[in-house]
Amino acid sequence: MDINLPEVLAEVRAVFEQYEEALVNNDVVTLDALFYNSPHTLRYGATENLYGYEAIQAFRANRPSQGLARERMNIVITTYGRDFATANTEFKRAGNDRIGRQSQTWLRTPEGWRVVAAHVSLMG
Amino acid sequence: MDINLPEVLAEVRAVFEQYEEALVNNDVVTLDALFYNSPHTLRYGATENLYGYEAIQAFRANRPSQGLARERMNIVITTYGRDFATANTEFKRAGNDRIGRQSQTWLRTPEGWRVVAAHVSLMG
Repeated sequence: MDINLPEVLAEVRAVFEQYEEALVNNDVVTLDALFYNSPHTLRYGATENLYGYEAIQAFRANRPSQGLARERMNIVITTYGRDFATANTEFKRAGNDRIGRQSQTWLRTPEGWRVVAAHVSLMG
Repeated sequence: MDINLPEVLAEVRAVFEQYEEALVNNDVVTLDALFYNSPHTLRYGATENLYGYEAIQAFRANRPSQGLARERMNIVITTYGRDFATANTEFKRAGNDRIGRQSQTWLRTPEGWRVVAAHVSLMG
């Protein structure tokens, strides 16, 4: 299992940044597109547990679009082979001292890299 | 990419249960063995962010060994191909109403299935 093949890492870093750009701009179309359209996909959010692509999509559609800007710290992206990756970052929002953490598991699909599992939380 | 091949799913379910048994019994040797021994491995805990196998191992060694029993809800294990899997569960500890969430990304290594990334949090 090759870890962090440079060309694979570059691909995942690109979609990770695409996700961030979409998140802070509440670009729901792109956020939806970057999650794997599957009933197996899940996302634990700071205040909700979402099972399946449709539940995640419904959450995005109803999310407040303000206050999404954030600073990221300690980004770690690791690729395993050519088709799988984990992407993790800590983050802080303006006016909030609590440290957030965002974990994603990415899968290469025929349509491109997609998130199959995500977990976002504020550190206790 | 074959999702949830029965024999692969059975393997991951077995290590997932082995992890749980070790966790509630504070079997640190087994917990350590089930995390991938790599500087890339990371674990976001309820109150700490740990980067690399050695940091995770040091945390386990110093962890209080009481009050680890818990009930799990909504377990979702999904395998992608033969070498990668995500495992997620919600949990509750006795005397605590907050919902916990545990996410793991598992990798098949020459030594067996190992966690390469984990995230544990209490829902806000």
